[in-house]
Amino acid sequence: MEILILNGPNMNLLGRRERSIYGNMSFETFYEILQSQYPDIKLTYFQSNTEGALIDKLHEVGFSIDGILFNPGGYAHTSIALSDAVAAITTPVIEVHISNVFAREEFRHHSYISRNCAGVICGFGLEGYRLGLENFLRRRDSK
Amino acid sequence: MEILILNGPNMNLLGRRERSIYGNMSFETFYEILQSQYPDIKLTYFQSNTEGALIDKLHEVGFSIDGILFNPGGYAHTSIALSDAVAAITTPVIEVHISNVFAREEFRHHSYISRNCAGVICGFGLEGYRLGLENFLRRRDSK
Amino acid sequence: MEILILNGPNMNLLGRRERSIYGNMSFETFYEILQSQYPDIKLTYFQSNTEGALIDKLHEVGFSIDGILFNPGGYAHTSIALSDAVAAITTPVIEVHISNVFAREEFRHHSYISRNCAGVICGFGLEGYRLGLENFLRRRDSK
Amino acid sequence: MEILILNGPNMNLLGRRERSIYGNMSFETFYEILQSQYPDIKLTYFQSNTEGALIDKLHEVGFSIDGILFNPGGYAHTSIALSDAVAAITTPVIEVHISNVFAREEFRHHSYISRNCAGVICGFGLEGYRLGLENFLRRRDSK
Amino acid sequence: MEILILNGPNMNLLGRRERSIYGNMSFETFYEILQSQYPDIKLTYFQSNTEGALIDKLHEVGFSIDGILFNPGGYAHTSIALSDAVAAITTPVIEVHISNVFAREEFRHHSYISRNCAGVICGFGLEGYRLGLENFLRRRDSK
Amino acid sequence: MEILILNGPNMNLLGRRERSIYGNMSFETFYEILQSQYPDIKLTYFQSNTEGALIDKLHEVGFSIDGILFNPGGYAHTSIALSDAVAAITTPVIEVHISNVFAREEFRHHSYISRNCAGVICGFGLEGYRLGLENFLRRRDSK
Amino acid sequence: MEILILNGPNMNLLGRRERSIYGNMSFETFYEILQSQYPDIKLTYFQSNTEGALIDKLHEVGFSIDGILFNPGGYAHTSIALSDAVAAITTPVIEVHISNVFAREEFRHHSYISRNCAGVICGFGLEGYRLGLENFLRRRDSK
Amino acid sequence: MEILILNGPNMNLLGRRERSIYGNMSFETFYEILQSQYPDIKLTYFQSNTEGALIDKLHEVGFSIDGILFNPGGYAHTSIALSDAVAAITTPVIEVHISNVFAREEFRHHSYISRNCAGVICGFGLEGYRLGLENFLRRRDSK
Amino acid sequence: MEILILNGPNMNLLGRRERSIYGNMSFETFYEILQSQYPDIKLTYFQSNTEGALIDKLHEVGFSIDGILFNPGGYAHTSIALSDAVAAITTPVIEVHISNVFAREEFRHHSYISRNCAGVICGFGLEGYRLGLENFLRRRDSK
Amino acid sequence: MEILILNGPNMNLLGRRERSIYGNMSFETFYEILQSQYPDIKLTYFQSNTEGALIDKLHEVGFSIDGILFNPGGYAHTSIALSDAVAAITTPVIEVHISNVFAREEFRHHSYISRNCAGVICGFGLEGYRLGLENFLRRRDSK
Amino acid sequence: MEILILNGPNMNLLGRRERSIYGNMSFETFYEILQSQYPDIKLTYFQSNTEGALIDKLHEVGFSIDGILFNPGGYAHTSIALSDAVAAITTPVIEVHISNVFAREEFRHHSYISRNCAGVICGFGLEGYRLGLENFLRRRDSK
Amino acid sequence: MEILILNGPNMNLLGRRERSIYGNMSFETFYEILQSQYPDIKLTYFQSNTEGALIDKLHEVGFSIDGILFNPGGYAHTSIALSDAVAAITTPVIEVHISNVFAREEFRHHSYISRNCAGVICGFGLEGYRLGLENFLRRRDSK
Repeated sequence: MEILILNGPNMNLLGRRERSIYGNMSFETFYEILQSQYPDIKLTYFQSNTEGALIDKLHEVGFSIDGILFNPGGYAHTSIALSDAVAAITTPVIEVHISNVFAREEFRHHSYISRNCAGVICGFGLEGYRLGLENFLRRRDSK
Repeated sequence: MEILILNGPNMNLLGRRERSIYGNMSFETFYEILQSQYPDIKLTYFQSNTEGALIDKLHEVGFSIDGILFNPGGYAHTSIALSDAVAAITTPVIEVHISNVFAREEFRHHSYISRNCAGVICGFGLEGYRLGLENFLRRRDSK
Repeated sequence: MEILILNGPNMNLLGRRERSIYGNMSFETFYEILQSQYPDIKLTYFQSNTEGALIDKLHEVGFSIDGILFNPGGYAHTSIALSDAVAAITTPVIEVHISNVFAREEFRHHSYISRNCAGVICGFGLEGYRLGLENFLRRRDSK
Repeated sequence: MEILILNGPNMNLLGRRERSIYGNMSFETFYEILQSQYPDIKLTYFQSNTEGALIDKLHEVGFSIDGILFNPGGYAHTSIALSDAVAAITTPVIEVHISNVFAREEFRHHSYISRNCAGVICGFGLEGYRLGLENFLRRRDSK
Repeated sequence: MEILILNGPNMNLLGRRERSIYGNMSFETFYEILQSQYPDIKLTYFQSNTEGALIDKLHEVGFSIDGILFNPGGYAHTSIALSDAVAAITTPVIEVHISNVFAREEFRHHSYISRNCAGVICGFGLEGYRLGLENFLRRRDSK
Repeated sequence: MEILILNGPNMNLLGRRERSIYGNMSFETFYEILQSQYPDIKLTYFQSNTEGALIDKLHEVGFSIDGILFNPGGYAHTSIALSDAVAAITTPVIEVHISNVFAREEFRHHSYISRNCAGVICGFGLEGYRLGLENFLRRRDSK
Repeated sequence: MEILILNGPNMNLLGRRERSIYGNMSFETFYEILQSQYPDIKLTYFQSNTEGALIDKLHEVGFSIDGILFNPGGYAHTSIALSDAVAAITTPVIEVHISNVFAREEFRHHSYISRNCAGVICGFGLEGYRLGLENFLRRRDSK
Repeated sequence: MEILILNGPNMNLLGRRERSIYGNMSFETFYEILQSQYPDIKLTYFQSNTEGALIDKLHEVGFSIDGILFNPGGYAHTSIALSDAVAAITTPVIEVHISNVFAREEFRHHSYISRNCAGVICGFGLEGYRLGLENFLRRRDSK
Repeated sequence: MEILILNGPNMNLLGRRERSIYGNMSFETFYEILQSQYPDIKLTYFQSNTEGALIDKLHEVGFSIDGILFNPGGYAHTSIALSDAVAAITTPVIEVHISNVFAREEFRHHSYISRNCAGVICGFGLEGYRLGLENFLRRRDSK
Repeated sequence: MEILILNGPNMNLLGRRERSIYGNMSFETFYEILQSQYPDIKLTYFQSNTEGALIDKLHEVGFSIDGILFNPGGYAHTSIALSDAVAAITTPVIEVHISNVFAREEFRHHSYISRNCAGVICGFGLEGYRLGLENFLRRRDSK
Repeated sequence: MEILILNGPNMNLLGRRERSIYGNMSFETFYEILQSQYPDIKLTYFQSNTEGALIDKLHEVGFSIDGILFNPGGYAHTSIALSDAVAAITTPVIEVHISNVFAREEFRHHSYISRNCAGVICGFGLEGYRLGLENFLRRRDSK
Repeated sequence: MEILILNGPNMNLLGRRERSIYGNMSFETFYEILQSQYPDIKLTYFQSNTEGALIDKLHEVGFSIDGILFNPGGYAHTSIALSDAVAAITTPVIEVHISNVFAREEFRHHSYISRNCAGVICGFGLEGYRLGLENFLRRRDSK
């Protein structure tokens, strides 16, 4: 089973940036722990601050792998192009937000991406990625 | 560990109601499976179509048990009183929606409840409850 | 043939409340006249000021009887939960408003219930219930 | 007793146009049935696609006949001039819509005409006209 | 000097229609008085309930006569086509409203026509037309 | 003189809930003090989290007692049905809010109830109830 | 007959300010011409850039003189206090705007003042004042 | 192959009206050139300023000819009735605007007609009609 | 104890102005009664129709006296500057409205001032000032 | 004559992506056919999913070649930067959309790009590009 | 070179008022420092809480001096009259805000004044005035 | 002291693009002048049309250098991701706009970036960068 974790803008600063909102752990550290805990899953990871690079990646893997955990960051609220990319591919996508976006500014309450996703998880910190992973495992098992 | 699953209006019709959206399984059947899979957790279940009865229940258990999985159904989008109740209690609440509300009518895209929850899970069908449960377990373990 | 007349909040005050808008006759008096005029129809009547009790009633009869004449009163404009209940059941529902809501305050011009009803009748006073009844009769005859 | 049925734009295509929404019967056929069923009423019928011609007709008969069943079609949502015409005359007007406009596009949820009508009936198909007719009969009888 | 008085929908009912708003005098009576008081001006008068007929008339005279006093009635608030016609012609147009539209319903507070007129007069009853006429006279004299 | 204090959702948690906003005293304690200070007034108290139960109570006492001090809590901002109930009864109602709702979230700035009340008091903490009581006393004396 | 011309902010710059919009003549020059043309009318003139001074003036003369020609300038679009002052007095007020405010920025299309005026005149340049004066004369004569 | 060019309000003034926006050529001149260039196509032309006349024409030809090039002018932005007529017929309709409506006033950015058309062409001047014609030719050839 | 009663625009007309809304008593008469009833309080009174004069007064006394009862009249709904002044000073301010502003026009439902006040009282007529005074007394006593 | 076809995000998936909306043919295949049909035109083609790369390309060729056919995809609705780029260059740009964006979601009805284009073509499938090409040819010939 | 610093409402409280937002220094102290640092510039200073007094001052100096540094305070967001005054004069005006208004309440994000200014500076504290001054100096030197 | 000037989309065309808005000088020329005038400051310069490249640059230098002068161009109005990047770093950012965005289209009046900046400067042409530089110098000196 092959899963991509796809992180959008500013996610590379995790652990450095606004820690009261995003926590202290860097994504790289978390990712290593996750890999060690799910040795059966082929996990890959990609991060970019560029909208187009995220679209390119979705196109590249979105017809072959088993699932994508996508944290679109700030692009969630502004990018129709990314939403179209999610709709265009066949791999199921789960949208993950680390913070509870609904408890923050008004402009973070709407996501263009959500409508084309298999599910949405937000507010659980880095654990949200694990919840998404668990769901992909269960989907496979229930087939 | 004690967790309440709290279901709002029309959730008692699950398995009978609009199956293309909500699926074929009744909540009772799902609930039994869940209980058998998590024997360590003291799971309880309450459903009501009345806004006030849901608020009463939140008050009753919201200062003593360990977590609440709350599917507010249609009240998510209209009830400030329920949102205030979630804010007033000390037990953490995870909001669960069976369907992907963001892919449905405009008026389902906003929830008054979300801002006061520990996290939000939507679009995973009944599995969303399990994902929430997993998160409560992990919280306990990480303490 | 079995028809439920379901009245929402404040409808119990009919004949006492704002008579210039709602008229002088109590609903009970009107209901007796109606029953005597349609002896073939099994008419039942339920009124509650509680949103959840109305949802419960819709669930209770909404898979077995032949029609529901529903006056949701003020809940028409605010209740997604009631609208979902109407959508969830299989008995056809006709929405009835005694006053012409479109000639009143702006916030009464929109009803969440209407979209899920078989039809809407408003502004005919208590006669609106009779018009709805006539339509249920005709539907039966045209089958 | 004299009643005008006044139909607005595109109603002349009934039975030909979007049958899943409007049904298979032409209005002319329905109108003949109606006439035969209510031999005591002097029914007349007028249809036009021109807003001004509908206003002219309302002026022409609106101070002398006993009632108007008015289906303003798409003009319901855009015409203040037609609404003013309904307000200006003394004959009571009942607004009829064949389809349930509240279950269609957002822009069909508001009608300028409704506020000046004696009542509104929508979503009952062609039967809506009969319900309106029944109401005019009852009004006469209750005088 | 040649001036057209152009009246839109429902203006033909003046003196008969909602007298508390529009007054008791018919426009014909007023028009005769006006003609007798301004014998030097070649006054003409046209009324139609049809948007297109009003546009036709504006086109017909709008490149040759000296002024148009235009009461667009309810079309003021909804007709971009009429506004375009006023912009397309070279004769100056003064918009006249008998009632004070700003003291009435919200939807009467905006006029598409106003932006293309030489001036706007509203709330003076039938005297508004005379004020417009006086202004056309003065324009001529000040040339 | 008979006065009802009617409290809406979450008011039963007073003294326990969000103390920085609502203060430390429970409503029961405050109520006892109030009773002892106004021995001449027949004070009664009712609290419910259920919208319909509040409507029922308003109907029950709203044609006989002398005044109602009503704190609708979160229902103030969403309930047309409660507002209709206040309009339907003859006993004057004073709306009381403990916190200054205008200094809180945007959605608390509008109340459906206010338009049908004799007066509105907000932001004075529990003292707001006393201010309302004082006003009922004065009304009686000025008769 | 006594008439006040009341000019609001920036009107003192007339003839100096944005001439393409407001013309070349100062208001003083125009006012002298007007006085010489209507010797029977006792004309007075007051200008202020201060909202409160305009309210004071309306109060001072608004229960005794025969009419007020009021150009509220930019305050038309923002001042509820001025609108209340016009409503509070008994002298009829005619609102005058020199430029066609409807052909300018969106925020100039709405006036709080208009709803409380006897009439509104806009877009005729300084001639608008004369039209208002003519109307006050005619009102007197028709009494 | 039979194609109707249907022009809405004010299009008869082309070449006379606001030339900086619409150009110098009259539609008649352009139409003759077009006919001579496409001798195989049976081109017909109809223009009206009346909304209802445009609907009548759409009904008349809309079940038999091969295509309609429709420039609804100002009615594009306000007419639901015309949009319904386009939806009701079976002949494909291409919407043409001479000017780039998106570079003009805000209220010209939305068209009710577009949603029911086969395609939309705007901003190419009179050449837009030719582009539409070319498309109808190609559709025929690709069958 | 020193309290300022600060009245905004048009309050000087009380007893003369729109009596059905504001009552028959002038503020001066009421103020004298109030002074005689509370001989211990040093009451002062200031009224101005000028926004800036109200701000000046707030600055002048707002760091020394014990409380301000402020009726901002129409400025409540439009003045951010006054709201800033209330926020800038240290004396607590209670906002008072004589009429129930929530039962009047839509634009009176929002107040910029409220968010910075200690409390809001509206709809009690002149008694609202007394209620505010009572609250200041109680505050002092509870210190 | 030199023309660039510039395609925005997700256009590289044409023929693979949502075929019911976009059709079965890949853009590359279509492009080859187009080249063979217009051998006189120097056609070039560029696609990118990155907003900035599209801007770079517009800058690179936008002062030298004869025309650009630009399908901005989802960026049409969100990118002011791209719109500014189109405004900044001197080569005329024609906006092309394959699907009829006006018959899809609300958020696709507005394009920032359109206001700066020479023309807009939408809903004709891949044929829209050919129509744009034809227009560039005609422009050249009519010079 | 002559420059006016014009301060609007509540600016006289600087150093006393909400120090976390506006800082500790009074404007008078800052102004003296500024004068000593720019001995060549004839600096003058005027502050008023009255909108009209600010307009008067703009008129008084706005056709003769070299520049105005204008901090309109809360009037920035509500005053069209002040904006008109800035447009009416010939002296260039630079708008200065001490705090970063864009990081504060929503209603402070829009300024009517900005559109008529030569430039806008906000968020730099009192240093913003110096930046404006530097710009006036440079303008003079670059002439 | 080290300062980055960061320019967003289309800024590379300065001096070539819409000169009436942006002026005649290229940014490179201006930058050289600036460097020669502030030899003590280590100035660097980066421009990109790609949102992600701007975010990358902010991350790269945003924890080490002393200040960033950021002209986000069109991204100011649409990019939450860029705004988040500014919030995430520790180097203070000053937002600079060459033109007065508040005097241009409505959609340029709002910037997501501003709320996270130390200050905003707009409308001063290229001089705006110098003003920002001056402010960084003064900040250093005042430490």
